[in-house]
Amino acid sequence: MVAPVYLDHNATTAPDPLVVEAMRPWLSDQFGNASSRHGYGRAARAAIDEARRQVAEAVGAHFTEVVFTSGGSEANNLLLKGAAACMRPGLLAVSAIEHPCVIRPAEQLARRGWTLHSLSVDAAGRVDAAAFSATMKRRPQIVSVMLANNETGVVQDVEALAEAAHSSGACFHTDAVQAIGKIEVDFRRLNAAGVNALTLSGHKFGGPKGAAALVLDKRIEIEPLIAGGGHERGLRSGTENVAAIVGLGVACQLAVSRRAEVAPRLLALRGRLERGLGALGARLFGESAARLPNTIFFALRELDGETLVGSLDRVGYAVASGSACSSASPEPSHVLQAMGVEPGLARAAVRVSLGAGNTAEQVDGFLSALRETVAKLRGLRAMTA
Amino acid sequence: MVAPVYLDHNATTAPDPLVVEAMRPWLSDQFGNASSRHGYGRAARAAIDEARRQVAEAVGAHFTEVVFTSGGSEANNLLLKGAAACMRPGLLAVSAIEHPCVIRPAEQLARRGWTLHSLSVDAAGRVDAAAFSATMKRRPQIVSVMLANNETGVVQDVEALAEAAHSSGACFHTDAVQAIGKIEVDFRRLNAAGVNALTLSGHKFGGPKGAAALVLDKRIEIEPLIAGGGHERGLRSGTENVAAIVGLGVACQLAVSRRAEVAPRLLALRGRLERGLGALGARLFGESAARLPNTIFFALRELDGETLVGSLDRVGYAVASGSACSSASPEPSHVLQAMGVEPGLARAAVRVSLGAGNTAEQVDGFLSALRETVAKLRGLRAMTA
Repeated sequence: MVAPVYLDHNATTAPDPLVVEAMRPWLSDQFGNASSRHGYGRAARAAIDEARRQVAEAVGAHFTEVVFTSGGSEANNLLLKGAAACMRPGLLAVSAIEHPCVIRPAEQLARRGWTLHSLSVDAAGRVDAAAFSATMKRRPQIVSVMLANNETGVVQDVEALAEAAHSSGACFHTDAVQAIGKIEVDFRRLNAAGVNALTLSGHKFGGPKGAAALVLDKRIEIEPLIAGGGHERGLRSGTENVAAIVGLGVACQLAVSRRAEVAPRLLALRGRLERGLGALGARLFGESAARLPNTIFFALRELDGETLVGSLDRVGYAVASGSACSSASPEPSHVLQAMGVEPGLARAAVRVSLGAGNTAEQVDGFLSALRETVAKLRGLRAMTA
Repeated sequence: MVAPVYLDHNATTAPDPLVVEAMRPWLSDQFGNASSRHGYGRAARAAIDEARRQVAEAVGAHFTEVVFTSGGSEANNLLLKGAAACMRPGLLAVSAIEHPCVIRPAEQLARRGWTLHSLSVDAAGRVDAAAFSATMKRRPQIVSVMLANNETGVVQDVEALAEAAHSSGACFHTDAVQAIGKIEVDFRRLNAAGVNALTLSGHKFGGPKGAAALVLDKRIEIEPLIAGGGHERGLRSGTENVAAIVGLGVACQLAVSRRAEVAPRLLALRGRLERGLGALGARLFGESAARLPNTIFFALRELDGETLVGSLDRVGYAVASGSACSSASPEPSHVLQAMGVEPGLARAAVRVSLGAGNTAEQVDGFLSALRETVAKLRGLRAMTA
């Protein structure tokens, strides 16, 4: 049987074979605890240091700014709750389209005395600049706006937002989990504009699950979420997952170094797919905004997204109906709701997220499968209507 | 070159080849996000469910009681801070010999309105029963006492302690990270005695780093440390590290099923080692208490533990001077301090922790190496005195 065509790279990606190869020794002979003083331990420590340098170099950070965590969700929680724990409760502003792992910890803080403000977005999914400026005048202490959205792929002008936030004295965080390897991410430049912290996660760009990083401006004080042995400069305790961290380092270097070659190819495939979807009368969300080269979020009116995803899966195409994390929930996407999309249309949403391995043939195959599936579902509906 | 003899299994263990084999597909073709609805996602979800059943079965829990985390430190922080977040601040009691990943979060809670009580231990490293009872009369809301200590290997009578704690209404947690695979751990029995939560960690018993579990009585309400997409029944968000979780499941089953065969073998090796150490005039910490079959924590008066560990490493034996996590700190072991060991002797402490792969020849080799090293170091001291 042929493996289904994978078009869900914003949910997760296959680890690159070079990444798996780099991880292998750390799952067998080189199994030491990086805190041990003997040779096994020193080898593990050296491997982690090397991965820290690789990640730092790939995103334009200093290696002492890289704090390894077990995932993007942990990194986002660490920044928000960790920074909040070092401040008196005040105003916290996060965009309405953040991933749940930013919105939920922000809500937890709101139950502990913080005032939570949800930054609105326009119909194309961009943070509303005027509303943002008005909020900054209220002097928020923490602001979090993602670099690129996981559902729509819409890219925010984080530099401009950070400048506005920074002049009001806020700690500015950006979730860059979906951006690495797809658009340029330069922490030094973002930091100069006022971004104090950035989240990245290995499994979104060819690395393993289980390793991610919070890149953190050292002027920002944070309290550890996981306290203990004092690993990661006291900011994240726990025996380091050496193999996964090594994989993250290699994946980060590969993703960033291949971007110049991969991104235009993805953009061409995205265009091909969008033309096909246009012919089907699909509505493309965030169409007028700057978007990731790999992401297409669309809806075919009157066809339920979940149903469409299930039908496409049965004919060999793996796509998503929204963000993977919220798939268990029957609620329409909070991102689309924030963009003012009516619930009926939001429920029809389907996300295709391309990867470097996808081909024009696969895109064409997907479009035919979609056409057939749509015809079948519309036929069924006509019969049962 | 021959690989150094590894005698530091309480710091970490080599993943079992069967564990690595089980993990392999989840690092290559089977890379789906377990929250995805398509085939790749469903396969990942099924693998996690299977691992959850394996862990539950191995420790006598129901599979819905198993909450996967990225490590033991996270699980301990999750229980302590997560339970505390659902209560009004009150009294929190943790033993003086807990791992830093219990003591540090307890200290964080103490800065947020909780009263922290450190439960004292006797000279053999056992929690002082009379002092414990007296503390329970003060009605602590959360109590945490480890099943077995990582440095001394001393095993606590957790069932008796939990019974006393439970009758006072406390939530009782035990860190069982060092116990799994070495002594019997039956959550159902512990739970009946009043233990509400238990921590285990894969890399301590032949599993990979990056996967652990909090086994949690569902009557205990906890708030997630990592909030977001709602994974793990809303108690721990973040894309699951499928490969590591699969490895944890297999490792847990292997460790528990092999225990009856492995533990007596370890105990015989421990006896052999202890006799040799006795001949060298070593002081064995916790000697009179029930201890893990694999752990020996000793000191040779007037010889610095760190120096000894370094010298032994150079001649091919990997041992520890204390818990790996605190190795960076020049402070003598807090465990030995709590046992009333004078700082000079505590600084001489060396830990040998055996694993199933160790042999009598390795133990004898270690003893000769130790004798030679000691003679050399004592000779140097005599010369420079």
